[in-house]
Amino acid sequence: MSEMDNAKKLVGEEAVKYIEDGMKVGLGSGSTVYWMIKKLGEYVEQGLDVTGVPTSQTTAQWAKEFGIPLTDFSELKQLDVTIDGADEVDENLHLIKGGGGALLREKIVASAAKELIIIVDRSKKVAHLGAFPLPVEVIPFGWEVTANNISTLGCVPKLRQKDGEVFISDNGNYILDCPFDKIPNPKTLHKELKSLVGVVETGLFVGMTDKVIVGEGDEVEVISKG
Amino acid sequence: MSEMDNAKKLVGEEAVKYIEDGMKVGLGSGSTVYWMIKKLGEYVEQGLDVTGVPTSQTTAQWAKEFGIPLTDFSELKQLDVTIDGADEVDENLHLIKGGGGALLREKIVASAAKELIIIVDRSKKVAHLGAFPLPVEVIPFGWEVTANNISTLGCVPKLRQKDGEVFISDNGNYILDCPFDKIPNPKTLHKELKSLVGVVETGLFVGMTDKVIVGEGDEVEVISKG
Repeated sequence: MSEMDNAKKLVGEEAVKYIEDGMKVGLGSGSTVYWMIKKLGEYVEQGLDVTGVPTSQTTAQWAKEFGIPLTDFSELKQLDVTIDGADEVDENLHLIKGGGGALLREKIVASAAKELIIIVDRSKKVAHLGAFPLPVEVIPFGWEVTANNISTLGCVPKLRQKDGEVFISDNGNYILDCPFDKIPNPKTLHKELKSLVGVVETGLFVGMTDKVIVGEGDEVEVISKG
Repeated sequence: MSEMDNAKKLVGEEAVKYIEDGMKVGLGSGSTVYWMIKKLGEYVEQGLDVTGVPTSQTTAQWAKEFGIPLTDFSELKQLDVTIDGADEVDENLHLIKGGGGALLREKIVASAAKELIIIVDRSKKVAHLGAFPLPVEVIPFGWEVTANNISTLGCVPKLRQKDGEVFISDNGNYILDCPFDKIPNPKTLHKELKSLVGVVETGLFVGMTDKVIVGEGDEVEVISKG
């Protein structure tokens, strides 16, 4: 296992310590979250009572595989904690998410939780957001106009492709990857983008994170919101 | 034909006078727009050169039926004029739209046009918006949480049904009908709603309309933005 993969496993397993008996848990998406779900499955087998709400079809499959009971928002309105990965985390714990394409469901599930815990390997910690192209979910109809409007904010959006086809999100929408390079004010940029007609959601998670668990090699650092 | 239907036909036909040779035209949705498209078809048959971008599948069918050439935003980024109906028009020409469920495509097409002309019968003119329940398009995933968040703004949202099933928009989303009763500040309410996670678009069209053509009986009134 590479050093980065080892760090992902480490923080994924570490995050499970924050899940208590009886909790409703938002289950994020991505390779780091995989390790969290696998470990959580062990605790469930040992008798821990938790219910999960998954943020993607892949996560739902993992949860089923590891025996974690699932529910959805027809059954509950609030979660105790959501645990998820990120593509970038800055010093104020603002995030860029959406590299995997599940940003909208991830944000809905994160918003519904009392606490949001982010698990990342060291490479995701940055001084300023923006080196990672910002994923923005848009309505397919008129996406060309929406992309044009986004470009006036200072980037050239690129329609995400996968295996030579346009990538379609779990919600049936497109993703525009927006290389802003530097995002000095994530809150303002999110507001400007979200206000545009045709924009469904952005990958900027501003002021939502309560705790970040960072892994580097065999070491774990926990950063709490100041 | 009832007096209201007569007024719809009158303003629909009147609107066509604003369409000039060579124009790219956004084609709205609904029963008033039907008359505009039918009349426009006559002009096209007589040699008028126009291309339309439809806001709904029904409108696209009408346009084909009446011989109006159609295109989409892969071919062009800007329209000369969009002509559409509305559910309410206030004294500042702010609108509530979405009774027919096409609000998102209607807003995208309206935004892309240099001029927006609204055609309505007299019953749609109101002193203040809000007697008509505001349609809000939301993502199906977690719609219960989104509805809950909307309710904190002062209404009890109702999930739109059609023929005993949940209504699905052309974009695969749900519509929440939000009876605010009175909307004293449409701009603020739109911003608050649109900023919510899970909200795709609202039926409030604020500061977008250039001209309203109102029909009552056999009379037509044209109101231009002040």
